[in-house]
Amino acid sequence: MRILISNDDGIHAPGIHALYDAVKDLGDITVAAPDTERSAVGHAITLSDPIKCREVEKNGEFFGYAIGGTPADCVKLAIYSLLDEKPDLVISGFNLGQNVGISVIYSGTVSAATEGTILGIPSIAISLCTFTEPIWETPQKVIRTLIERFKTTGLPPETLMNVNVPNIPFDRIKGYRTTTMGRSRFEEIFHKRTDPRGRAYYWMDGEMSLYDGQQDTDVQAVDEHFVSLTPLWFDLTHYQVMDEFRGGWDGIPKA
Amino acid sequence: MRILISNDDGIHAPGIHALYDAVKDLGDITVAAPDTERSAVGHAITLSDPIKCREVEKNGEFFGYAIGGTPADCVKLAIYSLLDEKPDLVISGFNLGQNVGISVIYSGTVSAATEGTILGIPSIAISLCTFTEPIWETPQKVIRTLIERFKTTGLPPETLMNVNVPNIPFDRIKGYRTTTMGRSRFEEIFHKRTDPRGRAYYWMDGEMSLYDGQQDTDVQAVDEHFVSLTPLWFDLTHYQVMDEFRGGWDGIPKA
Repeated sequence: MRILISNDDGIHAPGIHALYDAVKDLGDITVAAPDTERSAVGHAITLSDPIKCREVEKNGEFFGYAIGGTPADCVKLAIYSLLDEKPDLVISGFNLGQNVGISVIYSGTVSAATEGTILGIPSIAISLCTFTEPIWETPQKVIRTLIERFKTTGLPPETLMNVNVPNIPFDRIKGYRTTTMGRSRFEEIFHKRTDPRGRAYYWMDGEMSLYDGQQDTDVQAVDEHFVSLTPLWFDLTHYQVMDEFRGGWDGIPKA
Repeated sequence: MRILISNDDGIHAPGIHALYDAVKDLGDITVAAPDTERSAVGHAITLSDPIKCREVEKNGEFFGYAIGGTPADCVKLAIYSLLDEKPDLVISGFNLGQNVGISVIYSGTVSAATEGTILGIPSIAISLCTFTEPIWETPQKVIRTLIERFKTTGLPPETLMNVNVPNIPFDRIKGYRTTTMGRSRFEEIFHKRTDPRGRAYYWMDGEMSLYDGQQDTDVQAVDEHFVSLTPLWFDLTHYQVMDEFRGGWDGIPKA
């Protein structure tokens, strides 16, 4: 099995090394990740600048490719140029911090898996729901379980799996639950400051204060100590409103 | 009517001035756009750096806010901090270049409208399908028609409208068509180069060679000289596969 690993926290982040260690005996592993942190980059790609790529060692041996680009760039470059054969699976992670609710659309971690899916490779994004004191052993056990299941179950076409793992010891995880992307989101605050030359600038800040209260969401599952498994895709069409939309907007007179 | 205008080509791009000129007599207009081009940034936001903001004049009068951030930053900052009241409508455009098919997910233009929708404001992204010799008069007439219809029809909840306008004279436009986001995408090529110190770098290049051949898509509509109107949203859940997914993945033994 050929596995391509990426992330958005960068090739030196502890999470990607924890992921590598968890899967290294399961097949032929390639690491292609940003050379620095690229969080909250959404599904950005680098068109106007060159993309640097250098080889990184760990303990004196080749570890992976450090790429001067976004997570989506890394997956594209690896699949089109760095790898001789297409991988069987793309895994993005382990992200330090959950990717649930509306924040999924800003997520570089998810973006790497989305890019894999667009290029026809089954892909998984996996995040640990904490910013402090990560218990990496839990997502390590989870990803091995998921890969074992993947070998028989696969993923539906055009579907990536967004996995969020509660930051608790593995034996306290209650199980796995299929979820939707919730509506919980950060309510932003902008702190206004003034630079020494009198010019305004802002810092974006916020907290996930707007809890959606919905059932079966990723947010709810991790709160209840389940691993959330959310099937995502890249088609933004709002199919549920197509008929209403067509009724209201088709056939407008031209002027 | 209060209208917030943004884009991803930057506050000095001809497209945003063409949009401003088209709508300036329709209400109270605020321009908040990136200070430089921010194309293909996806739905990125700026969390690790300060966001600069300065006022820009045009013909000796205040024109708008030039913001050192992404399109999503601009809309967030305007709604949370720059505006006294929430706008009634967000319009992102006119983008130079179409936003159809898979490229929608990389689009900063669409991202600005997505952010408006997340914050509860009806939002429209509008792009002109050309990179050369833009006929701005056509999207100018189109956006006025759409705003007039919007006043009575509105937009469904959580829905933004992604508009693509063929670059032909307005009287040759065949009409308006509700479409889905197609699957057409760029097939990338990476050109490998070596810098003077022998280090590898790459340029991403490509062409939209993978035509989906589907019906009712944005790609097809603009090819047939219709204005495409695609209802988009920000929920990435792949609802169509939920049952299949649940069957395959729920209830995995924990280890």
